[in-house]
Amino acid sequence: MSIVTCIAPVNIAVIKYWGKRDENLILPVNDSISATLDTEHLCARTTIMASPEFKEDRIWLNGKEQSINNKRLQNCLIGMRKRAQISNDMECWKIHICSENNFPTAAGLASSAAGYACLVAALAKLYKVEGDISAVARSGSGSACRSMMGGFVRWHMGSDPKGSDSLAKQIVSPSHWPEMRVLVLVVNDGRKKVSSALGMKRSIETSELLKYRAEHVVPRRANEMNEAILQKNFEKFAELTIKDSNQMHAVCQDTYPPCHYMNDVSFTLVNLAHSYNSAANEIKVAYTCDAGPNVTVYILEKNVAEFISILDFYIPPADDLTVEYRKGIPIQLISPKQDLIEKINLEKQVPGLLKYIIHTRVGDGPKYLSDQKDHLLDTKMGLPIRSLTHQ
Amino acid sequence: MSIVTCIAPVNIAVIKYWGKRDENLILPVNDSISATLDTEHLCARTTIMASPEFKEDRIWLNGKEQSINNKRLQNCLIGMRKRAQISNDMECWKIHICSENNFPTAAGLASSAAGYACLVAALAKLYKVEGDISAVARSGSGSACRSMMGGFVRWHMGSDPKGSDSLAKQIVSPSHWPEMRVLVLVVNDGRKKVSSALGMKRSIETSELLKYRAEHVVPRRANEMNEAILQKNFEKFAELTIKDSNQMHAVCQDTYPPCHYMNDVSFTLVNLAHSYNSAANEIKVAYTCDAGPNVTVYILEKNVAEFISILDFYIPPADDLTVEYRKGIPIQLISPKQDLIEKINLEKQVPGLLKYIIHTRVGDGPKYLSDQKDHLLDTKMGLPIRSLTHQ
Repeated sequence: MSIVTCIAPVNIAVIKYWGKRDENLILPVNDSISATLDTEHLCARTTIMASPEFKEDRIWLNGKEQSINNKRLQNCLIGMRKRAQISNDMECWKIHICSENNFPTAAGLASSAAGYACLVAALAKLYKVEGDISAVARSGSGSACRSMMGGFVRWHMGSDPKGSDSLAKQIVSPSHWPEMRVLVLVVNDGRKKVSSALGMKRSIETSELLKYRAEHVVPRRANEMNEAILQKNFEKFAELTIKDSNQMHAVCQDTYPPCHYMNDVSFTLVNLAHSYNSAANEIKVAYTCDAGPNVTVYILEKNVAEFISILDFYIPPADDLTVEYRKGIPIQLISPKQDLIEKINLEKQVPGLLKYIIHTRVGDGPKYLSDQKDHLLDTKMGLPIRSLTHQ
Repeated sequence: MSIVTCIAPVNIAVIKYWGKRDENLILPVNDSISATLDTEHLCARTTIMASPEFKEDRIWLNGKEQSINNKRLQNCLIGMRKRAQISNDMECWKIHICSENNFPTAAGLASSAAGYACLVAALAKLYKVEGDISAVARSGSGSACRSMMGGFVRWHMGSDPKGSDSLAKQIVSPSHWPEMRVLVLVVNDGRKKVSSALGMKRSIETSELLKYRAEHVVPRRANEMNEAILQKNFEKFAELTIKDSNQMHAVCQDTYPPCHYMNDVSFTLVNLAHSYNSAANEIKVAYTCDAGPNVTVYILEKNVAEFISILDFYIPPADDLTVEYRKGIPIQLISPKQDLIEKINLEKQVPGLLKYIIHTRVGDGPKYLSDQKDHLLDTKMGLPIRSLTHQ
C-alpha cells in the first residue's frame, strides 16, 4: 500500500488563455501568463492511495464519488502511469483519489486548474515521475499546467502539433515581487453560465476577433508582461492585465451566440477600479475576470488598505454576521479619504453585492504533506475520512 | 418671414457605425447599414422660422432653449446656408429653431440622428437646397445621414479625406420588405453612460480589435447584409445583425477604459432571443443594441405575436397601469405555446425589467408638414408654442 497527499495552488491569469488550437491535446492559440496564489488561502488537496487490494480506480471530489471515466482525468492517469519510474508492480495497482478545495465551490473560482495540478503532483510523487509534468497537467485542464509552479508562470503555447513544447515555465519565484497582493472579489450571482471549455470552443468556431487577438495582440503583450514582471513595473503590469482581461471578454462578446461572464456587479467593480486609478492619478489597481462574474484585483501591499476603504464605501458588505466577509491576510481597516471619495464620485451601491473577499499573495507551487493527519483517505479501507466543512 | 416644419425618422443600424477616421468631418472607419423606422411611432419634429426681425439665431430642444454655438449644430447651419438657392436676402435673416421628439428622451433612444436629420431637412426646405444633403446631416451627427431617407440605407464610408463621398444611399424603399417589423425593448436603467461620441473616440484610440473589425470584418459583412436585404433573406439578415451588434459591443469591451452599454437585462434579452431561435429551430428574431441597454428586435410580422407571448412570459411587464406598456402597432396577444416554453427553459424574471416596448415598422425619410397647426413656433414672435407632453 502506498499513500501520498499533496496541495496545489489556484492561479489567476494576467494574460488570458482563451481558445484551443487542438481540442484533444488541449493546445492553446496563444501564450498565457498567471500568478500562482498562496495555497494558505486557496488550494486543492488531493490524497492518492494505491493498493493491490483495490478492485478499481475510484475518485471522490469534494466529498462525492465521481466517475473515473472522465476523459481529462484519464489523460492524466494514463500520462503519469506511462512516465512511472517505479520498479515494483505498484504501477498495476488500482488507486483511490480523494480531492477537496479549501474554498467553497460556489465561489465560482476556477477550481479545475488547482484540482488537476494537485492530481498530477500527487501522481508524480506516487509514481516517482521526474522532469516536466506540466504537459500532463495541461492534458487535464489547460490552465492547470500553470499551477505546477509558484510565482509568475508563463504557459508557452509551443509549435509542435503534438504539443511536446506546450509547457509552463516559471518567470520568477514568489520572492521576486513580495509586495504584490491579490484580492479575489467574490460576486453574488446565480446565473447559469457557459463552461469555459464550451465558451472557448464556441469562440474558436465563430469569433474572427479571437484569431486576430491570438496572432497579433497576445504575442506582443505576453512579452511585454514578462518584462513588466521581471522589472516589477506595476503600472505596466496593471495596464496589460486590465487590457487583456477586457479583450478576452470582448472575444466572448464577439462569439456566436455570445458568452457573458461579467455581470452588472463586475462592471461596477471595473468602473470603480478605473475611477480609483484616475482619482489617484496613478494605476494602483489592476483587475481581471475569468469565466464568471468574480473580479480579481492585483495591487501592491502599500495600497491595499486604501483601496479596501474605497471598495467598502462604494460597495458595502451585507450586514450578515454569519458570513466571514474578509478572508485571507488580515486587512487594516481605515476610513476612506474624503478627497478620494469626492474625486471618484460614483453612486453608492446597495450592501451585499459581494459575497466576500479573499486577500492573498503570490505563492509556491504544489507541496507534499507528509503528516499522517493530512491524508483525506483512511489508510485501512482507502475511503474518504470526512467530507470537508467548507470555510 | 418664412416658416417650415419637418419630421424625420429614427434609424437603427444593423451593421454598426463605431469609430471615426476623422473626428472633425465625422467620417467613419467603415460602412454602416440601418433601417429607417416609421415616423408614426418615433420621430423628431423641427420648425424653423426665418425673419428679418430676429436679432440672433436661437434653438429650443424639447422645450428648453439651448446654446446655438454647438459645433455640430453650426456645421449644419453653415453647411446649409452655403448651399442656399434663394434669391432674396433671407439667407442673412436670423432663424429660430424648435425641435422635439415624439418619444421620451429618457427612453435612451438615440435621438440625435433623427434630430439632425430633421434640422437639415427643414433647412433644405427653407433655403431651397437641392441634391444630396446627407453629408450635411452627417456633419451634425454621423448616423443622421442615414435618417435622410427611408427603407434600408447604407452609409458609404467613402475614401476622400475631405469626405465628399461619405454619403448615405438608399438600398431599398420601405415597400421592398413590408413584412419586416421592429420591436424596441426599452430597458429600465439608471446608470450614467459614456456618450457614443466619447466611446467611439476612446475605441479608436485604444482598441486594436476595432481596426481589424473596420478593415477586415465589416467590408465583407456590409456587402452580405446589402445582399440579404435585396433578397429578403431574413435568416441571413438576422445572423449578420446579431453578429455585428455583438462585435460592436466587443470593441467597446476592448476599449480602455472599457465602455459597457449593455447591462444584465440586455444580456437576459439576448439570451432569450437565442433560446427562442434555438427552440424554434430557425432564426426568427434578430437583436441589436446601440450605446445603451435597450434592445431592438427585427422580426417578421407573422412571428410578432408568438415572440411577444414568449417575451411576456419570461420578462413580464410591471403591474403599473399608469404606463402604456405596448406602444406603436397593436399586437395580438396570445398565450405562449407550452412546447416552446419547455424548450426555452430559462428562468422567469421579476416583472418590470422593461419600461415599455414599441412595435413599429420600416418607414419613409423626412417629411414636410404644411399644416399651420403643425408648427412648433408661433408665427408672430417665433417662440415655442408649447412644451410637448411626452407620450
